[in-house]
Amino acid sequence: MYQYIENGSVTSTIGFKAAGIFCGIKRKKKDLALIYSDKPCAAAGTYTLNKVKAAPLLITKDAVEKSDFVNAVLVNSGNANACTGDEGFIDAYTMQKQCAEKLGISSNKVLIASTGVIGQKLPVEKIITGLDEIIPQLSCTGGYDAAEAIMTTDTKIKSYAVKINSAGGSITIGGICKGSGMIMPNMATMLAFISTDAEIEKTLLQELLSGAVKISFNKISVDGETSTNDMALLLANGASNIKIEKGTEEYFSFKEALEDICREMAKAIVSDGEGATKLVTINVKNAPTQADADLIGKSIANSSLVKTAIYGADANWGRILSAAGQSGADFDPAKVLISFDDLPILMPDYKLALDEEKASAILSKDSFVINIDLNYGSEGSTWWTCDLTEEYVKINADYRT
Amino acid sequence: MYQYIENGSVTSTIGFKAAGIFCGIKRKKKDLALIYSDKPCAAAGTYTLNKVKAAPLLITKDAVEKSDFVNAVLVNSGNANACTGDEGFIDAYTMQKQCAEKLGISSNKVLIASTGVIGQKLPVEKIITGLDEIIPQLSCTGGYDAAEAIMTTDTKIKSYAVKINSAGGSITIGGICKGSGMIMPNMATMLAFISTDAEIEKTLLQELLSGAVKISFNKISVDGETSTNDMALLLANGASNIKIEKGTEEYFSFKEALEDICREMAKAIVSDGEGATKLVTINVKNAPTQADADLIGKSIANSSLVKTAIYGADANWGRILSAAGQSGADFDPAKVLISFDDLPILMPDYKLALDEEKASAILSKDSFVINIDLNYGSEGSTWWTCDLTEEYVKINADYRT
Repeated sequence: MYQYIENGSVTSTIGFKAAGIFCGIKRKKKDLALIYSDKPCAAAGTYTLNKVKAAPLLITKDAVEKSDFVNAVLVNSGNANACTGDEGFIDAYTMQKQCAEKLGISSNKVLIASTGVIGQKLPVEKIITGLDEIIPQLSCTGGYDAAEAIMTTDTKIKSYAVKINSAGGSITIGGICKGSGMIMPNMATMLAFISTDAEIEKTLLQELLSGAVKISFNKISVDGETSTNDMALLLANGASNIKIEKGTEEYFSFKEALEDICREMAKAIVSDGEGATKLVTINVKNAPTQADADLIGKSIANSSLVKTAIYGADANWGRILSAAGQSGADFDPAKVLISFDDLPILMPDYKLALDEEKASAILSKDSFVINIDLNYGSEGSTWWTCDLTEEYVKINADYRT
Repeated sequence: MYQYIENGSVTSTIGFKAAGIFCGIKRKKKDLALIYSDKPCAAAGTYTLNKVKAAPLLITKDAVEKSDFVNAVLVNSGNANACTGDEGFIDAYTMQKQCAEKLGISSNKVLIASTGVIGQKLPVEKIITGLDEIIPQLSCTGGYDAAEAIMTTDTKIKSYAVKINSAGGSITIGGICKGSGMIMPNMATMLAFISTDAEIEKTLLQELLSGAVKISFNKISVDGETSTNDMALLLANGASNIKIEKGTEEYFSFKEALEDICREMAKAIVSDGEGATKLVTINVKNAPTQADADLIGKSIANSSLVKTAIYGADANWGRILSAAGQSGADFDPAKVLISFDDLPILMPDYKLALDEEKASAILSKDSFVINIDLNYGSEGSTWWTCDLTEEYVKINADYRT
């Protein structure tokens, strides 16, 4: 049993504070975020699969793996500190070390992340100066400012919290995240920072995060790109005094709520994808294996031809079937059923059930579901994508200037 | 030794005739093409890897495999006859059979192809009526009309021929092809019809075609899509009285010329990709294996972020490196060199050599080369792609209407 908290954020959890400020990396907008818990937190993370990994990501991965507990996450936007060589590593270490010193904790208790342009030197001195301003601003209502400070081409703040009621009392999970280009399955697609006041042992925390990421952040695509910097972090400080142990009722409630908030964040990223005007859910049903369902979902979610047709509200179901066909998955095209929301489009043996007007009305909505029933097994997979618009091209043709 | 023939076409070869007419499938433009050789031709083909294969493609594949010789290729544009079920097969057989009867040959001597919208019934009666008009128009100058009649969203006719001079006399290879969306490695990306007056045994012909396609049509990407219909066919009628046998001097000349004309056709398809304004050659150098080089070339050629940056003439080399990183290939990002034409952009250890003004000048050209030297082996791979523009989105948002 859980419910969403209105205006919830990463600071809706007991004991977590945050702040977001402008420190001078971007031109005007907030570009530095800090999340902090006095009480030490078990930490878990999932990271990009891109071979090119940014310095802050490698440092954070190392700290999550080696530290029993952490206290803070420091994030800058406007510069990814990726492909910046040894100097980039020194800058990232400096960012981590200075933050730790000013908080009075050891370096490996601070996780760091960066997002923005690749290949430009990080103006680390601006971050150091910014630390003196941001630390005094830490507050239990600062989640929204932090969410704003991690944005790049995002147009909307993405901030959520859920409250889980259990026999022993209530637990909260809060999260903030950012997109919004370079979004593609396999993590490496965005930044997400999630807090909880549950007490959870580190190995279990990692297992829960990895499981939730697999069905949320790893099931979305804006443009099929996997970036060098992105990660999801989950920090648990135990401030609720409720301990989550595997197999208990609390465990299942927590797992369900964590998955749900991750899915909400993932969908928010897709909805706010660069140039996107529509959020599309792709339900692949009755595939022979989970892997086949995933191949098809991913191929449809990444198809430029499907995504442009959706933009044009054109019920071009042939492109959906063709995208499935090029996925490498095992299925029989002649058995496939396609529907948009509850409206049948294609029946087996290529029998058309297409009412162009009704189909176009569905495709004109802000949000709808494409169902593709392979009728060839019993496994399924849900994906989220957005439309591909002229605006995406405009944004990305001229990102650096 | 070979040279391109001015205004060359599939009919520049001895004994091949062709014609292209409007038969009523499209609104106004030519939509039916026929290529014909009195003299029987050995035939070879390569076909889409999409699981969803159109009826005409399956019928043609079967005819190429089972017939020792063929005489004709009949192609319609405006309708792909794909995802049309049993009725689609009947229509495709009817198209093949009627053409054969009117030409006075057996059905399996006629290869067929269709391109256009997926999932709509083929108006086969228009093709049958059209046959009575097109057969009398067959001529040895009809290659251009045929090239025009196979176009869909192509804006330019793609027609080429090369003349090979050998000790025994001259051989000609002529070809026509069409793009221009749904273009992605692994065949299944376009239609190409190639003729030669050399005499070549069927198995060797297939080997030569497969080899040439691998380094030409399978190395291009417009939008990462693989269609249901596309194929490359090579017909050899022996009219030059020169026989090509493996390992001879003529063999190597023929192989080189065939590869070159396939590359020219592939580049023409990319140049004329939907909405494309630039032709970009991607040279991957010094990879540990051929497969790694291909993974990287394909990933860069398909990257929406690279392709939009090229459109904006933005020297965003970080996106190139990131696209390489997400390819799954084995390399060390810190060893990579990137250059545009001869202008160094990135040196090993992420040392920037970027002159923004000069780089942008190169990226503003109609055609240029991106070199990515992995400095990590000795294998290479060349790919071709185009920029991603607002026009691509416009064309595809509203293709059917």
